[in-house]
Amino acid sequence: MLLDDLRPRLLLGPGPSPVAPRILDALGRPTVGHLDPQFLAIMDDVGDGLRHVFGTDHTMTFPVSGTGSAAMEASLANVLEPGDTAIVGVNGVFGGRLAEMARRMGAEVVTVEAEWGRIVEPERMIAILRQHPHARVLAVVLAETSTGVEQPLAEIGAAVAGTETLFVVDAVTAVGGTPVEVDRNRIDIAYAGTQKCLGVPPGLAPVTFSERAMERIRTRTTPCQSWYLDVSLLAGYLGSERKYHHTAPINMVYALHEGLTAIREEGLEARYARHARIGARLQGALVERGFRLFAQEGHRLPQLTSALLPEGREEGPLRARLLEEHGIEVGGGLGSAKGKLWRIGLMGHGATDESVDRLLAAVDDVLGTRGA
Amino acid sequence: MLLDDLRPRLLLGPGPSPVAPRILDALGRPTVGHLDPQFLAIMDDVGDGLRHVFGTDHTMTFPVSGTGSAAMEASLANVLEPGDTAIVGVNGVFGGRLAEMARRMGAEVVTVEAEWGRIVEPERMIAILRQHPHARVLAVVLAETSTGVEQPLAEIGAAVAGTETLFVVDAVTAVGGTPVEVDRNRIDIAYAGTQKCLGVPPGLAPVTFSERAMERIRTRTTPCQSWYLDVSLLAGYLGSERKYHHTAPINMVYALHEGLTAIREEGLEARYARHARIGARLQGALVERGFRLFAQEGHRLPQLTSALLPEGREEGPLRARLLEEHGIEVGGGLGSAKGKLWRIGLMGHGATDESVDRLLAAVDDVLGTRGA
Repeated sequence: MLLDDLRPRLLLGPGPSPVAPRILDALGRPTVGHLDPQFLAIMDDVGDGLRHVFGTDHTMTFPVSGTGSAAMEASLANVLEPGDTAIVGVNGVFGGRLAEMARRMGAEVVTVEAEWGRIVEPERMIAILRQHPHARVLAVVLAETSTGVEQPLAEIGAAVAGTETLFVVDAVTAVGGTPVEVDRNRIDIAYAGTQKCLGVPPGLAPVTFSERAMERIRTRTTPCQSWYLDVSLLAGYLGSERKYHHTAPINMVYALHEGLTAIREEGLEARYARHARIGARLQGALVERGFRLFAQEGHRLPQLTSALLPEGREEGPLRARLLEEHGIEVGGGLGSAKGKLWRIGLMGHGATDESVDRLLAAVDDVLGTRGA
Repeated sequence: MLLDDLRPRLLLGPGPSPVAPRILDALGRPTVGHLDPQFLAIMDDVGDGLRHVFGTDHTMTFPVSGTGSAAMEASLANVLEPGDTAIVGVNGVFGGRLAEMARRMGAEVVTVEAEWGRIVEPERMIAILRQHPHARVLAVVLAETSTGVEQPLAEIGAAVAGTETLFVVDAVTAVGGTPVEVDRNRIDIAYAGTQKCLGVPPGLAPVTFSERAMERIRTRTTPCQSWYLDVSLLAGYLGSERKYHHTAPINMVYALHEGLTAIREEGLEARYARHARIGARLQGALVERGFRLFAQEGHRLPQLTSALLPEGREEGPLRARLLEEHGIEVGGGLGSAKGKLWRIGLMGHGATDESVDRLLAAVDDVLGTRGA
């Protein structure tokens, strides 16, 4: 395959999202060294920008050199030791992944399951926390990309705050699209991906650790199982010491820098409002066309809509036609939702009326719904 | 810091190396989805290109979504279980890192140490292997980036081949600059980085697993400690199933694709000859100027030269002047070589006479060596 033959797509799946030309330009800037004072200044800016979008003052806020699942692994591996208890809310693929990772780290995992498409009721999480007062971690997924559900955090955060448990939140699909509010929600560790509402290609995964989490890292009795993701080593590079750990993905950091600059220019509140308005518009239009929204009412993410197709329609071939005939990518279902629904992302640079117009016209074409 | 203010550098350190405009162009191509048939075709091409540069037929050859140290971790974590024995040659930073990672995985690590700047004698490695016939892994660093030493592999590979031990080779700085010859050297697992002799920005880490290594992965009794780096899961994405695992760094894969295309166009033998000639030219010129080469004679990498400064010269301030006054980056020493030497990379797109000309002129300026 030649890169010259690459046909652009309108990316309205669960990620990656469309990347603005200014971000692609940034990506192609000349590579400099990872210890170059210029690059260190860029990394410092990126830390500031990430604190802004996470809503936190945490010093230890940086992009992991990997994709979202690497940051998920970093978030757990740095604070869990074998035998520790981890409470994990599971109402979709990514909650399940958190639980699986914690198990591989030797943790005793207590899952709090909820039906896919529904939130995990905060009172259930809190009741389980009360039963495990020495749990090391309580983890939930803020924006469950497999179902489009937004998990309420505030009550859980308040309950965790007075305990010895750390509050870990998967914010991969949230950051830059809907509020995370790390400090207000008393989150200790949150992580994200660049390829969703930040509008940057995949390849980096922002993460933030509270001072409480860092204290836990300092007092663990065994080293972090992962050298690559060990935050105590990364702190040497990110802090005043500037000690070599690994070579950061320089050009990807440029792109993230540009993405965070674009967010500052737009304003975070304006950006949230844009995502909310565009997502609501799409969801209304899909219902009019006979789709059923999969996520629980009142807890629907605007940036990621999961929709069951109108009765009798097979999703796979129709989704392939959207891609092939209209150049629009939407996602299929994962896990137990496979074959049943579409996951439509309106994220970052893709959260526009034009995206919705193009998508609806294409949907009307392939489904033969109301007069294209 | 504004990206517009970024001053380009001539990257002659231990990595990243200079990135050709065609690679930067590729990086900025429109992002498509990681399950888009177009992207899957690109990934297949990348697998072919990596098999070519590694010198292998191994099916399981792909870029890890991280930097070189992530691939190092993947190489060990997939085959080691707690209690396994790992024999590791240590003659610099990266051998030490291999040993440290294996320890964190619960392995019994047997190090075979050699003085920094010297190879680990193959007969010593082989003698230790004979003492540990059930060792799971024997690992060495082919191109030790901290010292500039090239480790001989063939005898070790031949000795390992008849045993139950897997031969793991760090080829981060070798791939694309000097031969790795995975199949000829009977290597089971080798890994690399994109930011050295492949001439691509940092952010991906090629790796290859033999069928013997894959069989070991299939028969392990505990899951790989890392979900993110689990090759048995990645195989589902890379194989015919195309099953979602994580979102690959799409644009970085474009860049790697372009880098591998450039290598095919140049020809691997011509590329090795270019690196050999340019490296030898630099090493001769440095000796003329009173530098002493740190690496053992007969085992010097052409792409990475470690050189002790002329008597009485302090490396730090002179290195800063190269960067600030001449826009040229070279590396300092790591670990026990800190403060003593420079590490000069002539890698990939940077391995040219023009690089050497510019560097020597700058060296003559800051050191006052023979008439600039």
